[in-house]
Amino acid sequence: MDVRLVQATDIIGGTFSLALFGMIGATVLLLLGTGWVSRQWKLPVALAGLVTLIAAAFYLEAREVWLAFGQMPVIYRYVDWIVTVPIQVLTLYFLMAAVARPPVGLFWRLLVVAVVMILARYMGEVGFLYSTLGFLIGIVGWLYILGEIFFGKLGEINSKSASETVQAGFFWLRLIVTVGWAVYPLAYFIASFAGGVEEGALSIVYNLADFVNRILFALIVLYVTMRESALSR
Amino acid sequence: MDVRLVQATDIIGGTFSLALFGMIGATVLLLLGTGWVSRQWKLPVALAGLVTLIAAAFYLEAREVWLAFGQMPVIYRYVDWIVTVPIQVLTLYFLMAAVARPPVGLFWRLLVVAVVMILARYMGEVGFLYSTLGFLIGIVGWLYILGEIFFGKLGEINSKSASETVQAGFFWLRLIVTVGWAVYPLAYFIASFAGGVEEGALSIVYNLADFVNRILFALIVLYVTMRESALSR
Amino acid sequence: MDVRLVQATDIIGGTFSLALFGMIGATVLLLLGTGWVSRQWKLPVALAGLVTLIAAAFYLEAREVWLAFGQMPVIYRYVDWIVTVPIQVLTLYFLMAAVARPPVGLFWRLLVVAVVMILARYMGEVGFLYSTLGFLIGIVGWLYILGEIFFGKLGEINSKSASETVQAGFFWLRLIVTVGWAVYPLAYFIASFAGGVEEGALSIVYNLADFVNRILFALIVLYVTMRESALSR
Amino acid sequence: MDVRLVQATDIIGGTFSLALFGMIGATVLLLLGTGWVSRQWKLPVALAGLVTLIAAAFYLEAREVWLAFGQMPVIYRYVDWIVTVPIQVLTLYFLMAAVARPPVGLFWRLLVVAVVMILARYMGEVGFLYSTLGFLIGIVGWLYILGEIFFGKLGEINSKSASETVQAGFFWLRLIVTVGWAVYPLAYFIASFAGGVEEGALSIVYNLADFVNRILFALIVLYVTMRESALSR
Amino acid sequence: MDVRLVQATDIIGGTFSLALFGMIGATVLLLLGTGWVSRQWKLPVALAGLVTLIAAAFYLEAREVWLAFGQMPVIYRYVDWIVTVPIQVLTLYFLMAAVARPPVGLFWRLLVVAVVMILARYMGEVGFLYSTLGFLIGIVGWLYILGEIFFGKLGEINSKSASETVQAGFFWLRLIVTVGWAVYPLAYFIASFAGGVEEGALSIVYNLADFVNRILFALIVLYVTMRESALSR
Repeated sequence: MDVRLVQATDIIGGTFSLALFGMIGATVLLLLGTGWVSRQWKLPVALAGLVTLIAAAFYLEAREVWLAFGQMPVIYRYVDWIVTVPIQVLTLYFLMAAVARPPVGLFWRLLVVAVVMILARYMGEVGFLYSTLGFLIGIVGWLYILGEIFFGKLGEINSKSASETVQAGFFWLRLIVTVGWAVYPLAYFIASFAGGVEEGALSIVYNLADFVNRILFALIVLYVTMRESALSR
Repeated sequence: MDVRLVQATDIIGGTFSLALFGMIGATVLLLLGTGWVSRQWKLPVALAGLVTLIAAAFYLEAREVWLAFGQMPVIYRYVDWIVTVPIQVLTLYFLMAAVARPPVGLFWRLLVVAVVMILARYMGEVGFLYSTLGFLIGIVGWLYILGEIFFGKLGEINSKSASETVQAGFFWLRLIVTVGWAVYPLAYFIASFAGGVEEGALSIVYNLADFVNRILFALIVLYVTMRESALSR
Repeated sequence: MDVRLVQATDIIGGTFSLALFGMIGATVLLLLGTGWVSRQWKLPVALAGLVTLIAAAFYLEAREVWLAFGQMPVIYRYVDWIVTVPIQVLTLYFLMAAVARPPVGLFWRLLVVAVVMILARYMGEVGFLYSTLGFLIGIVGWLYILGEIFFGKLGEINSKSASETVQAGFFWLRLIVTVGWAVYPLAYFIASFAGGVEEGALSIVYNLADFVNRILFALIVLYVTMRESALSR
Repeated sequence: MDVRLVQATDIIGGTFSLALFGMIGATVLLLLGTGWVSRQWKLPVALAGLVTLIAAAFYLEAREVWLAFGQMPVIYRYVDWIVTVPIQVLTLYFLMAAVARPPVGLFWRLLVVAVVMILARYMGEVGFLYSTLGFLIGIVGWLYILGEIFFGKLGEINSKSASETVQAGFFWLRLIVTVGWAVYPLAYFIASFAGGVEEGALSIVYNLADFVNRILFALIVLYVTMRESALSR
Repeated sequence: MDVRLVQATDIIGGTFSLALFGMIGATVLLLLGTGWVSRQWKLPVALAGLVTLIAAAFYLEAREVWLAFGQMPVIYRYVDWIVTVPIQVLTLYFLMAAVARPPVGLFWRLLVVAVVMILARYMGEVGFLYSTLGFLIGIVGWLYILGEIFFGKLGEINSKSASETVQAGFFWLRLIVTVGWAVYPLAYFIASFAGGVEEGALSIVYNLADFVNRILFALIVLYVTMRESALSR
């Protein structure tokens, strides 16, 4: 690829590099971490690491695209999200599956809902669906997931069977899914109904939000499972 | 390589990226997974991971080719398939080999039939063979493989000696080989006898089918062997 | 990428290659090292390895940029620093966390201060902030970190609970943070207030300083934790 | 690199991709396999994996060269062979070294003869040596190696001290070295004395022969050592 | 990067590829080998692997540079040497440190002398220093290192405390440092005082010398430590 120069004041280009470096670091740490935690925690740690790995692959290309074209067509982010958002939701599922046995049906429901949620948003945003419809399906999907992890079987397992450390971790993970993920429908809303957003500004928001929504998410998973593994020894 | 822009509504280009990300994630998970399962399950898990690894290498190039030329000559997919389809068939063999001892001759028969099946399809599709002949050899090869895993020695080992978990997994893997793999002769049939297909539409079908035929296939292998390893401890 | 020729006497280009090779070597050694040390030391060793890994990614690109454009806009280094400097500070935290339990609040304070310190320097240097203000915030952040590791809880844990080896290692790590890191505010000062520096000369200084500030830092962490692991066996 | 299109009927280009994919898969399997076999078998498994690794590196470049120039100068293959052929011969040596102790002098003889054999062939083929002389030295070297593994110390260790599994494996490995490797002097002979060969046809032959001479070779080593490791547990 | 064609008779280009393949193979073997040897030998094996790893990185670029420009400015090799030569010297130190405890001061002396030796040679060769002075400092540094490993503390530990295997290995490693390394001052001498050398011829010599000075060096370290690990079990 041709080398492209990032100017000293190009905050947008800089946050793409920043997110890339952050994802590379988080991925290596999480993948190494699968070797440090007890057997039952290896899967959730690996899944959290896959999210940052795929995000790293996304940023590797997205950064090039941005520097070359000054654009970031929404399809790039949606391709990333449609793989990683379900994995993140299932990370919560498998975290609880290491504590007790959540029903298998829930696995499939979470997977399908997460995929549909992202798909609807994408189709709404590029005009394959009415904007409002895409937005609504996305919101409903998100609420369903929140319902399951707060009041559904996963929430129940957490409050009844999980250790204190796991409960504290689950609290923060849920907070990220609730507050941190709010950036996506918000950005959608502004882009589609409130006059649109400047693509560069949006990129900065997304790139920085990923430090919370993916890297912090992954680090909490690693921290909790390392603590638990140390205690159970 | 030059950076190429994927437009926001370019579904075809998007599914190439999607499949690439999915394969990368699955590969890392499966290769890590070889360290989590008991000794006798390491080989089938590794083989399932090789399939997604080689598919990742295929998509890395195929995506570039598609974005640069808007074409996907069939040879790209057939080169991938002639390596990965035999590995998938042998994954089933080695899954059963961890339960009981299937005859070595079966190994070679499955390997040869799988290679011939793909080869015949390729030769039929590019015109080195009569279309009908290539199609028929492909079908016969597929039926032979189905016969072996349903009614042959592998089916027998499964129904007689395998644990419940393994049997359930084998059920789903067989279903993928039966229903999921039907997409290939179907696409061949439509392309050769029913007026041809649009290359972009075909790419979408193949790219999405790979989420079932390779990634789901691999995840089932990992799930079953992880469960078995946990139980036998 | 196009190949570019480094002339025999091009010291600046040479030090970019040098730092890249050094970072690659250090990263592989540290990541391997996580497998050699006892469980409680794995995290600090991994963090020290992440620093050199991200620095390697930085140099891979920075070297290309320098050879292609003969420039090194400050944003490249700041993107690296805003990820790696907090990781280095937290390496000290987790080194002590393996000895005793420092308060969790300290973790967040160190993280935030390190990020703010780098951010302020960047904003001051590119003119988003008054030069003097950026410089001062940077200095105050640095002093706060020094205070915590010398006289705060971390210093206390070190002097009260750590073994002799760990204390000796902590001594040298602190020295690097004190003396080695002085190069950054110094370079800032000269660049902003004392007539500016020649970009090439500055690159040589930074590239060579990284052998102390990152590679030696990482090697000390590895050395100390390997010694401790050998003793506790 | 620029993307180049492989046409649907371009068998030569296809076999380059095929060999590349095969080598990648075999390499990952063999390197993983070093973790599955008992201590004394790790070295031969690793060596067999190095052969496919270096072959993968060769094909990565050779494929580009072929697609770009439609040529495959012999030096590319000879550079690969002069590294990998000695490693393969030494794989046989270390396989027997895990059974009994072959003399160290034999190690050096096999190494030197294998290097000289390839070197002579290369020099004969490009005209640095009389064609006939290069051919003869190559043949003599090959016969020497065959003599050592059939009737020399290695053959003796195999027939006297090796287990049945190892003996069976050694039988097949020897067969590959005898029959499979015959393709190289044959191709040399035809190229130099019998009117020359078409470079594309030769590439197909070499690319497919590598599935036997390197991948099957490696898989036999892995299979035998995995069986032995399972039995001795 | 653009693909460049190596002609069938281009020995120089061929030896660059050769060295690259050799370094890749050696690196993978050595890094795997760190998992096979006992705890105390892991560090020297890893260091020997770092040398071939960094050399692989060097050859990856050097080969491109040579094919593109037909030049190999000395700075490329010196950047490699200034990192790898100290690592090799320290490999000898840590080999002995696994047997007994050499003084820490010796570590620093060896490190500094090795760096100064390479630096002086570089400066002498490009004219930053009088040719004669650079040559002399280089020679003195080399003699100091030879003195330490033959007659100094390292030689003493070796002859008094090391096992027979280690002593034999140390003998060969010393021989490489004495005879193999003589190629560097020799080349320097010819280049600077005896009318200069042809750059291509020099490259062949260096590329082939690396098979002894780095790959054989590394293999001896691996062999000795594997033997020792097997015996002590």
